[in-house]
Amino acid sequence: MDIGFIGLGEMGAAMVANILKAGHQVRVWNRSPERAQALADAGARIVATPAEAFAGDAVFSMLADDAALREVVTASLLEHAPRGLIHVNMATISVALAEELATAHASRGVDYVAAPVLGRPDVAAAGKLTIVAGGPAEAIDRVQPVFDAIGQKTWRIGSLPQQANVIKLAANFMLGAAVETLGEAAALVSGHGLAIQDFLDVITSGIFPGPVYAGYGKMIAENSYEPALFKARLGLKDLRLALAAADAVTTPLPIASVVRDSLIEAVAHGDGEKDFAVLGQVAARRAGR
Amino acid sequence: MDIGFIGLGEMGAAMVANILKAGHQVRVWNRSPERAQALADAGARIVATPAEAFAGDAVFSMLADDAALREVVTASLLEHAPRGLIHVNMATISVALAEELATAHASRGVDYVAAPVLGRPDVAAAGKLTIVAGGPAEAIDRVQPVFDAIGQKTWRIGSLPQQANVIKLAANFMLGAAVETLGEAAALVSGHGLAIQDFLDVITSGIFPGPVYAGYGKMIAENSYEPALFKARLGLKDLRLALAAADAVTTPLPIASVVRDSLIEAVAHGDGEKDFAVLGQVAARRAGR
Amino acid sequence: MDIGFIGLGEMGAAMVANILKAGHQVRVWNRSPERAQALADAGARIVATPAEAFAGDAVFSMLADDAALREVVTASLLEHAPRGLIHVNMATISVALAEELATAHASRGVDYVAAPVLGRPDVAAAGKLTIVAGGPAEAIDRVQPVFDAIGQKTWRIGSLPQQANVIKLAANFMLGAAVETLGEAAALVSGHGLAIQDFLDVITSGIFPGPVYAGYGKMIAENSYEPALFKARLGLKDLRLALAAADAVTTPLPIASVVRDSLIEAVAHGDGEKDFAVLGQVAARRAGR
Amino acid sequence: MDIGFIGLGEMGAAMVANILKAGHQVRVWNRSPERAQALADAGARIVATPAEAFAGDAVFSMLADDAALREVVTASLLEHAPRGLIHVNMATISVALAEELATAHASRGVDYVAAPVLGRPDVAAAGKLTIVAGGPAEAIDRVQPVFDAIGQKTWRIGSLPQQANVIKLAANFMLGAAVETLGEAAALVSGHGLAIQDFLDVITSGIFPGPVYAGYGKMIAENSYEPALFKARLGLKDLRLALAAADAVTTPLPIASVVRDSLIEAVAHGDGEKDFAVLGQVAARRAGR
Repeated sequence: MDIGFIGLGEMGAAMVANILKAGHQVRVWNRSPERAQALADAGARIVATPAEAFAGDAVFSMLADDAALREVVTASLLEHAPRGLIHVNMATISVALAEELATAHASRGVDYVAAPVLGRPDVAAAGKLTIVAGGPAEAIDRVQPVFDAIGQKTWRIGSLPQQANVIKLAANFMLGAAVETLGEAAALVSGHGLAIQDFLDVITSGIFPGPVYAGYGKMIAENSYEPALFKARLGLKDLRLALAAADAVTTPLPIASVVRDSLIEAVAHGDGEKDFAVLGQVAARRAGR
Repeated sequence: MDIGFIGLGEMGAAMVANILKAGHQVRVWNRSPERAQALADAGARIVATPAEAFAGDAVFSMLADDAALREVVTASLLEHAPRGLIHVNMATISVALAEELATAHASRGVDYVAAPVLGRPDVAAAGKLTIVAGGPAEAIDRVQPVFDAIGQKTWRIGSLPQQANVIKLAANFMLGAAVETLGEAAALVSGHGLAIQDFLDVITSGIFPGPVYAGYGKMIAENSYEPALFKARLGLKDLRLALAAADAVTTPLPIASVVRDSLIEAVAHGDGEKDFAVLGQVAARRAGR
Repeated sequence: MDIGFIGLGEMGAAMVANILKAGHQVRVWNRSPERAQALADAGARIVATPAEAFAGDAVFSMLADDAALREVVTASLLEHAPRGLIHVNMATISVALAEELATAHASRGVDYVAAPVLGRPDVAAAGKLTIVAGGPAEAIDRVQPVFDAIGQKTWRIGSLPQQANVIKLAANFMLGAAVETLGEAAALVSGHGLAIQDFLDVITSGIFPGPVYAGYGKMIAENSYEPALFKARLGLKDLRLALAAADAVTTPLPIASVVRDSLIEAVAHGDGEKDFAVLGQVAARRAGR
Repeated sequence: MDIGFIGLGEMGAAMVANILKAGHQVRVWNRSPERAQALADAGARIVATPAEAFAGDAVFSMLADDAALREVVTASLLEHAPRGLIHVNMATISVALAEELATAHASRGVDYVAAPVLGRPDVAAAGKLTIVAGGPAEAIDRVQPVFDAIGQKTWRIGSLPQQANVIKLAANFMLGAAVETLGEAAALVSGHGLAIQDFLDVITSGIFPGPVYAGYGKMIAENSYEPALFKARLGLKDLRLALAAADAVTTPLPIASVVRDSLIEAVAHGDGEKDFAVLGQVAARRAGR
């Protein structure tokens, strides 16, 4: 396929590398052009403006937050986008903005697909992301070859693009809750003189298998939160979005409120760039340790 | 081995059945004697008083709560227990009582082993419990054949019996937190018009594998909480104990506080005998559904 | 003085009536023009556009929320505002928007004063509001005669306009916390068979004097939340703003998170138009009553 | 009257001094006898055992906690108490123990009155306590002269003694919630560069008059928590009791859970002997300050 790709952060760059490997043509744009150079070496064509990326079969975006996306996808940009183009936004944005974009794109004859991904940069580099896609089925069909290049599985959920964002935010809320819970449980067992890793061995070999409890748990047991695989600062962003998405459908999420408060506490202590697992340190600090 | 077993609730009865199958001799006592009859048919010997169960190589107890255990294991009972007997308490009790019992037993020359189990009655019936054992290593060695008859794995953690109880309570706190989180996430996604099971499929095939998220999630998706595998009322008991154990080492557990409050709400609405997963209904009700 | 006034809701209309009584000239604008007629009978001059209100010595605004204010105070409006005009915004808006407006006004040579008020419509009608004013001291001096017509006291706090909004949001957060706490305490005492009003008599004649505990408490004791003096829906708006203002300075507010969740629950049960005190009903419902 | 008084802590000693001043005869007992000496100089008669205090018209107790009271008021003591004696317990104890004691006393023909007090040691010294009395009306009538010597007002609430304890715990829960809320609001306003005292001036002269907000607020504004008027450690005890009393009637108290967690955090940081207002420091620390 002939696609544009906007946003070459850690995630975006890893995805483009895999898309190129799969034989697609990719025009790339990034605010800081130096990030594009390595990809140019791998075959990407660097373009000077986002508008030039909005061309070909489809354009993919993976920008940092709502503000960055809103700035790039202005109405004026959409005005010049070719009718029939597909815009696949893979970033985690607010449900409200997703809904707004879906409407704006539709009014310009551009298909809007929300396709947030589950997985951290190491998973993206391995081409093993989980993709949750929402939007017009026919548009998703057409970009499936690109999804296949970056992910191991594409879930099609919901008829509206923004529903895919809800799934992503709900998943990240659950992730945050699991990590906060781990941190608190670790503070409890260590308060009673036990080794945190011993506790982890019990639960991860039984009730809580899988990478989340084992991986974040290990960081907590070792009290070591760098390098960050998923930054606390970004986790906080997602918790805010999950709470806003829940508020929009008048749904209280008391657990999410607790996790959000703990993440703010982490950031307030200068740990925003550390891994999400730093919630374990927040729990320990509350216990005076 | 020649053992006594006190407390023939659902869990205790399933354990005794497996111990008998493994060829051990078991004297059983239960407050309501009718529960003992089926086990007698399988080879157990019914005794008339708890004191008669405190004999042989070891006595096991699996009573409902602190009050029941305290009543049975009085100082006077311990006074008549043969020196060198091992008392293995497998019930989930408070850390404070475990510590108190450890001291009381030691002063009478009786070994005290705390061996709480992870797993619900169906797991107990299958002889696949996970056992967390704390106490004198030599005593645990001696009762290991019984553990092998009821569990698939024995973890030896901590040098003090009560530390095994801490592990159990921390695990059940994590379980409660996972279920409450699931309930809230389910309310979020269903509030946006999505099928809860679709969301579960995404997370259980990726970040949250294992029986907890799949099993409790299914009950929440189906909004069906009976028959209960683990009752909300008992979950509340464990959350209270976890909070008390944390308080004892000045450790706040904000997530546990939220789960406890939600479980109280479930019980207040008459759902104490339903499965723990009824937390999903609590979350839905808060959202006006 | 010769002033404009934008926004004639319950609060704004009561304020304008008092400003007219004090002998000032007021040009009024409201989205729904019928609300202006009663004030015209009392001497106000109705203008057709917000721009016409942005004239004379000062313009006051009392609009419903950030969105309404942003729409009215566009850059284009500011472009045509006479240099030297004072804009006094008395509505409760976000700290972020207040900061943005302060900058926008300064760049157009218009003084921006934030002057949120404490007090409900009945207090506004009595001309007894408490005003918290932030912004250029000289500008506040000039509009003080208008403040004197609507309030009993003007507090000048902070050198930046948005700091006045912080004070207002912190006060409303405290109000919400007090009402939620009252609701929970009421559920506790009534759960033990006591009359809520008896409990209120004890605390309001001692540790908690003043109108907040007595007034909201009475509604809770009578389980009667209409007519609303301060609507739950508006309280929720303010809690959201307080949490956002706290997040902006990385400050967790766990109590505010709880109050927000309870207000969402109230709205979810169709009680958004009822008085803030309906938090008492939320607490009672959680207890199954 | 001829009374006994058990427990001469700061509160008890201040109360006895006022009872003596009013002309009553008082037999005093305290675990550490040195605390009794100053009162002996003022006319009290020191007795050697609690049993000797259980004589005359009535015996008053003001012990530290459930455990201390339970130890003193054993069944054996009650056995020897003269029938018709009145036992007035003024300490803050659990609702469960109050209920248990009411039954135990009744069965021995001793009247049990629960009369917890609102007010800190300085209020006790001034004889201005607020007394909440529950129990047999005739018994309360008889001890009213003593209440008049130590308090400014006696509230008779509820027909059951333990209901008076519920009122006290609900009041202290509200106190804790107010202080935690103040602490959080202070962190919010100071985070935006405002002086905490300026904020306090606004709210205490308007919506939140009275000693609680002004007094605790001042400590928070000055970040100075000693000498303690009401210790954080004792506040934590009362929050635990309030939560247990609520749990007993299946009533969730989410705000109380938050306050409890914050108090645990204060104690964990070595601030248990500081004033309750140290919750302000907990809130500031969470915000990284």
